[in-house]
Amino acid sequence: IHDDLPSMDNDDLRRGKPTCHREFDEATAILAGDALLTMAFQILSSVDERRSRQLLKIIFSISTAAGYQGMIEGQMRDISSEGIKLSLDELESLHRLKTGCLIEASVISGALLTGADDNQINRLRVYAKNIGLAFQISDDLLDIKGDPKIMGKKTGSDQNRNKNTYPSLLGIEQSRNLSEKLIANALQALDLFDKRSDPLRHIAEYIINREK
Amino acid sequence: IHDDLPSMDNDDLRRGKPTCHREFDEATAILAGDALLTMAFQILSSVDERRSRQLLKIIFSISTAAGYQGMIEGQMRDISSEGIKLSLDELESLHRLKTGCLIEASVISGALLTGADDNQINRLRVYAKNIGLAFQISDDLLDIKGDPKIMGKKTGSDQNRNKNTYPSLLGIEQSRNLSEKLIANALQALDLFDKRSDPLRHIAEYIINREK
Repeated sequence: IHDDLPSMDNDDLRRGKPTCHREFDEATAILAGDALLTMAFQILSSVDERRSRQLLKIIFSISTAAGYQGMIEGQMRDISSEGIKLSLDELESLHRLKTGCLIEASVISGALLTGADDNQINRLRVYAKNIGLAFQISDDLLDIKGDPKIMGKKTGSDQNRNKNTYPSLLGIEQSRNLSEKLIANALQALDLFDKRSDPLRHIAEYIINREK
Repeated sequence: IHDDLPSMDNDDLRRGKPTCHREFDEATAILAGDALLTMAFQILSSVDERRSRQLLKIIFSISTAAGYQGMIEGQMRDISSEGIKLSLDELESLHRLKTGCLIEASVISGALLTGADDNQINRLRVYAKNIGLAFQISDDLLDIKGDPKIMGKKTGSDQNRNKNTYPSLLGIEQSRNLSEKLIANALQALDLFDKRSDPLRHIAEYIINREK
């Protein structure tokens, strides 16, 4: 909700529907974002008091990933680097902060709750890092090659805004290759787990094949 | 930070300094607010893992008070009632949500952490409810009678914006009387506690005497 606002991405549509500030107004959109952010922690703190230690770790992991050392820092870098050419390392670090950390926290949270061991958590971390970056690359590719009707929003907005993207740095072909390599790495990291981890495998495959 | 934004109170100054969106820009102000909100839960979840049960209760209490059932709902009511005359009950309920709940959660959190009993917590709740409302009334009074130099911001903004305030409903004299009565109630609720609660008493007295 917040990054659609006029002072940030200024987007009118999300999944084919008007963004929150277009449907209502800016004040409502800012407050709705604040409410949902706060509600995440309300839910996490009321799940199950018998697992308070694990839940506290999860709250720490999610708030760290979403906050000034994670998503917020990534979004600041994203905004302030419009029109400035980044290196591949800088772009990777931006995306790792902006979306990667929170994807990683989401994957790890489930593992923390079930008492996974360090090796299992490390494997899941490798999985999450790889799908996080692949997701961003496929996002960049969809903004060039995607079908606006399927996506429910306009394409080409990255180029209009002079954003740093993988295709602009590597070209379309090489971006697609990189994305496929990352997904292969992600799947490999799951070797340790049996078929109960198939939902994670499906997510990895979805990222390569998604059309929106 | 968020309620100073142009789409809400549109304030240029806070404590004599430019508000965040004036000093930087709107995107930075929105993200800074998000970062601080998130950081609260990062701090709460990393205090002391041996008290994870109490900390989880505190996280629940603060997120409930700050979220859509508390502060956010109060702020929405505040915005949507500009120019509409509220009853005294409606105004009290608005302020209870907008600032009261969070003041109460702040007072109760300390008690939860030290393992206070139900009677002690109830007394502190009465104290918090009374100082919360008194704080709002003195805020309203300062916006009329305060010295802009001491306060570091312009006065008269409530009237300009057609806001519902205690002085506009009750008059200045009766508002001041109500505020004093509330503070007396707050101090009485602390009777149970010895002088280690003096900081709470000082806060109550500060609210009556504050000039900014």
